[in-house]
Amino acid sequence: MALDPDAFLTDWHRIVAERDLDGLRARLAEDVSLGAPPYWTRIEGREVVHHLLDLILETIEDFTYHREWREGAELALEFRGRVGDLDLQGIDLITLDERSRVANIDVLMRPAAAIAALRDVIAPKMTAFLSARST
Amino acid sequence: MALDPDAFLTDWHRIVAERDLDGLRARLAEDVSLGAPPYWTRIEGREVVHHLLDLILETIEDFTYHREWREGAELALEFRGRVGDLDLQGIDLITLDERSRVANIDVLMRPAAAIAALRDVIAPKMTAFLSARST
Repeated sequence: MALDPDAFLTDWHRIVAERDLDGLRARLAEDVSLGAPPYWTRIEGREVVHHLLDLILETIEDFTYHREWREGAELALEFRGRVGDLDLQGIDLITLDERSRVANIDVLMRPAAAIAALRDVIAPKMTAFLSARST
Repeated sequence: MALDPDAFLTDWHRIVAERDLDGLRARLAEDVSLGAPPYWTRIEGREVVHHLLDLILETIEDFTYHREWREGAELALEFRGRVGDLDLQGIDLITLDERSRVANIDVLMRPAAAIAALRDVIAPKMTAFLSARST
C-alpha cells in the first residue's frame, strides 16, 4: 500500500460511516500521534488512539463530514455534529505516512462548551481503558 | 478585484505579519461572519469582526502560520502561537467571496485551556468595544 490520499479518503469515509473498527485500526500507523481538542499533551500509539477515535465517533451525534482539503499527504476534514444539545464544528488535520496510514491527527473543535461536554463523557472512559491496560 | 485565492493569501500573510489593520479591513466583506473558538453564536459585520481579529492577533504571541490548504474559494490556514505560557494550535477556515474578500471565517483552536485564556483576555475588550459602539 503506497501513499494514495484519494484511496485513503474513500476508505476513511466508509470506515466512519460504517463504524468499521477493524478498518479504522488498519488505517492507523503503529506510532500514530493524536492531538485531542481539550489537551496539549498528545495521545500516542495505535491502540490508545484507536480507542479514543472510537469514543469520539460514539459520543458525537449526527457526525457528518463537510469541507475537505488535501495537499499531498496532508488532509483537512471539516466535520459537524452534536454533543447533547450542543452543536459543534470540528476539523481533523491528518498527516498520512508512506503507506497511507494516519501518522498524525489533530482534532480541533468549537465551541468551548462542546469540547468540555465531549471531555466530560470521554475522559472517564479513557481513564478506565488506560487503567485496565496497565494492570 | 475578482476571486484570486493566491493573491488573497499573499496579501493575508503580509497583513498578518505587518499587523496592517487597514489592509485587514479591506479584505473583509461588509457582512463577514466569524465563528470564534469559545462560542457557537457567530460574530457578524465588518467592524466587529475586524476588531475581534485585531484582538486575536494582538493576544496570541508568536503567531505563525503553518500548513495551508485551498480548494477554490475555501481556504484552511493552520497557525500556532501562545497565550501566556500555553502553547496553542489553531486553524482559520475561510470562505472568500467573488471579490476575494473574507465572507466567512471559522477559528478553531486547541487546547481548551488556551481557548479559555484567550477568551478571558478578549471578552472584556470586546464588551467594552460593543458598549462604546452602542452609545
